[in-house]
Order: sequence, then C-alpha cells, then structure tokens
Amino acid sequence: MTAAQPTALLALDWGTTSARAYRLDAAGRILDRRAATLGIAHVRNGEFAAALDGLLGDWHQLPVQRLACGMIGSRQGWVEAPYSECPAALSALAKAIVHTQSGELGIVGGLTCRDDAGVPDVMRGEETQVAGLLDGEHDTALFVQPGTHSKWTVVIDGAIVAFKSYMTGEAFAVLREHSILGRLLQGDSPFESESFERGVRRGMNAAAGGELLHQIFGARTLALFGELPADGIADYLSGVLIGSEVAAGYAWAGSQGTELGTPWLLGAPALCSRYRIAFGIAGRAAKMGPPDVAARGLWRIAVHAGLVADKDTK
Amino acid sequence: MTAAQPTALLALDWGTTSARAYRLDAAGRILDRRAATLGIAHVRNGEFAAALDGLLGDWHQLPVQRLACGMIGSRQGWVEAPYSECPAALSALAKAIVHTQSGELGIVGGLTCRDDAGVPDVMRGEETQVAGLLDGEHDTALFVQPGTHSKWTVVIDGAIVAFKSYMTGEAFAVLREHSILGRLLQGDSPFESESFERGVRRGMNAAAGGELLHQIFGARTLALFGELPADGIADYLSGVLIGSEVAAGYAWAGSQGTELGTPWLLGAPALCSRYRIAFGIAGRAAKMGPPDVAARGLWRIAVHAGLVADKDTK
Repeated sequence: MTAAQPTALLALDWGTTSARAYRLDAAGRILDRRAATLGIAHVRNGEFAAALDGLLGDWHQLPVQRLACGMIGSRQGWVEAPYSECPAALSALAKAIVHTQSGELGIVGGLTCRDDAGVPDVMRGEETQVAGLLDGEHDTALFVQPGTHSKWTVVIDGAIVAFKSYMTGEAFAVLREHSILGRLLQGDSPFESESFERGVRRGMNAAAGGELLHQIFGARTLALFGELPADGIADYLSGVLIGSEVAAGYAWAGSQGTELGTPWLLGAPALCSRYRIAFGIAGRAAKMGPPDVAARGLWRIAVHAGLVADKDTK
Repeated sequence: MTAAQPTALLALDWGTTSARAYRLDAAGRILDRRAATLGIAHVRNGEFAAALDGLLGDWHQLPVQRLACGMIGSRQGWVEAPYSECPAALSALAKAIVHTQSGELGIVGGLTCRDDAGVPDVMRGEETQVAGLLDGEHDTALFVQPGTHSKWTVVIDGAIVAFKSYMTGEAFAVLREHSILGRLLQGDSPFESESFERGVRRGMNAAAGGELLHQIFGARTLALFGELPADGIADYLSGVLIGSEVAAGYAWAGSQGTELGTPWLLGAPALCSRYRIAFGIAGRAAKMGPPDVAARGLWRIAVHAGLVADKDTK
C-alpha cells in the first residue's frame, strides 16, 4: 500500500468457505489482493465485523467504500441481501445493494428466476462474476460457471435474463465419496483424459433424466468387467455428469431464441478445462474467462451504484 | 419341523446385509422361514460355512439340497458364481449353478447384458426373483425391482432377454444424507404424498440427463422459497428420482419391440407403492408381485437343475 496508488474501492468476494479482498484503484484496476479462510462457515457467533477486520488487515483504515458479493449476503451470512428477479441489468444489481447495520460493508444481492416448470432458481455471487464481463449495455452472451452448483446464465442486451443451476459438482462429490462407486476408486490419480472423454460422450447421450441414473451405475460395471481402468473411474463419472450438464445446458440456452455466440467459462481453471473438453466433444468452442471476475464485477456494480466515480476506461 | 411336512429343498436368499432361509416341500410350497443378520457384509474371515450353520439351525441336518441366490455368489461372497449372458431362460440359470468346495451349498449365478452403447450391466439375485414368476416357457413380461440399484427386466418367451439398472435408491440415499439437500430435512417424516407426486411429475419431464441435475437442485430452491414443506423435501426428491427412472425405464422397455403387458413390481412393499404411484401418474398400471419370490425362483431353478423332483403343480 503506497501513496502512489490511491485506493478507490475495497472489493470482497466472500463465500461459504473462503474470503478474498481486492484493493482497486480509481480505474477499477486491481492493486493488491488478500485471502483468508474466513468464509461464512468459519465465522462463529455472527462475528462478521471481526472477520472483516481480519480479512482487510491494515486496509481497514482506508477511507473508501467496501462492496462484497457471495454468501455473505445469504440468510446464513452477515445481512440477508434479497434476491432480485431476472431480467436484471447492472443497474438492478446496483439498486439491490444492502448495507450492514453499522455501514461497514455493502453487499450485492443474488438473483432469482423461474424455469419452464415455474420452479425457482437462485444464484448468489455468480451474478457479480458475470457482471465483471459486461460493459453494462450492449452485451449478449452465455456464461457457464462450473462448480458445486453450476450456473448457465444468458445475458441479452446487458441484462441477465435467465439462468439455470445444475447440481453437477455436488452430485459428483457425494457419489464419489459415499456411493458404491467410491469403493472402487484408488485414491487420487492424475487426470485420465480418455476415461473422462468417454464419460462425456456417454453423458451427452442421456435422452432422459433417468438415463443418467443408469449411466452412473455403468461406471461400476465397466470397472467390474475390466473395461475401465481403476484410476479412470472418477474421471469417467465426472465426464458422464459434465457431459450430461453440457448437453442439457446447451439445449436450454439454444431455446432462448437469441444467438449468444461462443460461451464464456468462468471458474477454477482445472474445472473449466474439463468443461472446455466437453464443449469440444459437442463440436462447440468455449472461451476461458479472465481471473478475478468477481472483483471486476464488484467494480462495475459499485460504479452503477455511485459508490465510486466512473473513471473506468473499459 | 414335523414329519408330516417333508422338506424337499432349503432355499436361501443371501444378500449383502441380510440372509433368509426357506424350507420348501416337494411341491415348492414354503413350510417355514428363518432370517438372520448374516449378510455377507457381516461374515468375517470368510467363515461362510459357520454362517450357513447359524442361519439353518436344526435344518442343517436335513438330507436335502440347498440352493442360494444373491451376493453370496459375488466376488465378495463364498464362491464366485459367474454372470451368464442374456438371453437366459430358467434352464440357463440352472446350468450356471456353482457349488461350494465341500458341497454345502449350490449358488445361482447372476446375469449380464449390454445396453445400446455396449456398456455392461449386471444383476445378482434379481434374476431369481424374476424366475419366481416364470412358468419356464411361455412368459412375456416386464419386471420392475425398485431398490438401491433398481432393475428393469424384460422377459420374452420365458427368457430374460435384457435388463437395465438405475442407481435411483443409492442416489437418493447419498443426496439425502450427504448433500446440501440433507441439511434442509427435518428428521423422519411420514410419507408426504403430495410432495412425492409433484416430484414424480417433475422427474418424468426431464428431457435429458442433465435436466435431472437441475431438478434435484430445485428441491432446495422450492424449500428456500417456502414452496415445498420442509417435511416434504425428501419425498419430493424421491419423486423426482423415481419419476425420472420410471419415464426412462418405460421408454426403454417400449423400445424392445414386444408388448409386455402390465409390469410386475417386485420388492419392499412401501417402495413398490411409490413406484405404483409413479406408474399411475404416467397413466400406467402396475401389479404388485407376491412375497417370497426369491424362494419361488430358487425352487423353479432347482427343478430345472434336477436338484429336486418336479412335483410342482403350478
């Protein structure tokens, strides 16, 4: 922290298991970053103010706004920041910011929409990552955010119009750790791309939800018959699940009636690479998003909220 | 055990967690039954002979054949009874019986087939239950055996021609116990039929494997939005999974090119009832199988193997 780099905003990506803080200058550029295992699951007795101090360290005294996104705004977090309904542009995200009682922190709310069957869906944190790649007016794109609960998000003319969650990462984790498939696995192995790709091709061909329940059983029988290497079972299962998500997500995105172009992949690079392989198998391209999209999104939302002056040159 | 009821066969349904023994007369009727928590998971150091003695008790001295089915014939059991390939009639199951080294027990082997993608599938124990409802020559029917790994089995002209496994029960168990959905559940509740049926309708509409990953996430958001009662979440999830299995299973059975009639449901009555509700929602009937189908099947296979004289009047 030097006088030569004046801070304009402290941006916080505050999730369930981890918390990251970014110090941004008046053009929204990242000057510095800090991380701590102070995710909301680690904060006891609601001592979020102390956790914030711990995360910020000596940034605490900087006379600038602080804006956070993620599970810190959930019912289990510091202050509940309600879900806004889609469609939601940057201005809507900016309007929905909630502040802690003593004003230490602004928190971006999540988004909600309903699927074709009228079932509600939610995101919290992902909307800010998407915002990091929007110029605020003219964007039309598809964003794919792989993870525990993957999100597929359609942006048309700068507004998030719809999104869809897939419980892919969590299904993989519980099946790997707690099902009969887990008993076949042999510890951690390096990425077995052949098994993964085979799984993807299989998962993409699941023509009904129940077929997926058949296909995951197949990971066991293939291993039992020696037709899948033991160190490839986990990657095969991962491929089946990711392949089925990618096929379903593409079908859904295609039904939105707008040409969305090459989708963005946002998230952990190793996981995004798996999705990129799956897109490739489907004959589609996908582009990897830049790092720190949450910090970029917080900046753009802060600009729209008037928390910082707009000196962003884009 | 009286002299008035001479024993012709001891039939054993010996699975992973439980073991049941039946004493049958010369017409294949059940005279008596015994059960013990001596499933193969409970037998230590390969002491299956002692476990058999424990299960049979004073039946041990009866000078009759003993025939078992189930996981006792798996790689983790007493003696591995290989999988026979479909199509398999009663005669094929009879031919594949394997005996323990000292001849204490005959064991019916499992079955294997391959799905449209060439992926192997297996059953072990379910083939004997199906055999319990076959007269050995003329049957053409669809059997549905709900469970940890549900089986859908097509029998044409007395032979099991194809079957398909769905990991429905295990997926439900690991999601309920280990995923974010489990954290929303409020202990054991009575059957919430409305939530179950709502889940079934949803699961039946999953037009791709990945849609199921979206639908299970919906159990959480519906609860989060107060649109599903907390004591209905588990049954909703159960409905989504069973609905997706029933839709996929029916589509698969329909592709076999033979009119199979009203399907049989074989298994635990409470679970079969759930499937029957799901069939009803799909506009289909299903009939509940009789109890003790494994004992009936062991009798029929024993007759075909010449282990007992055929005095079965059918």
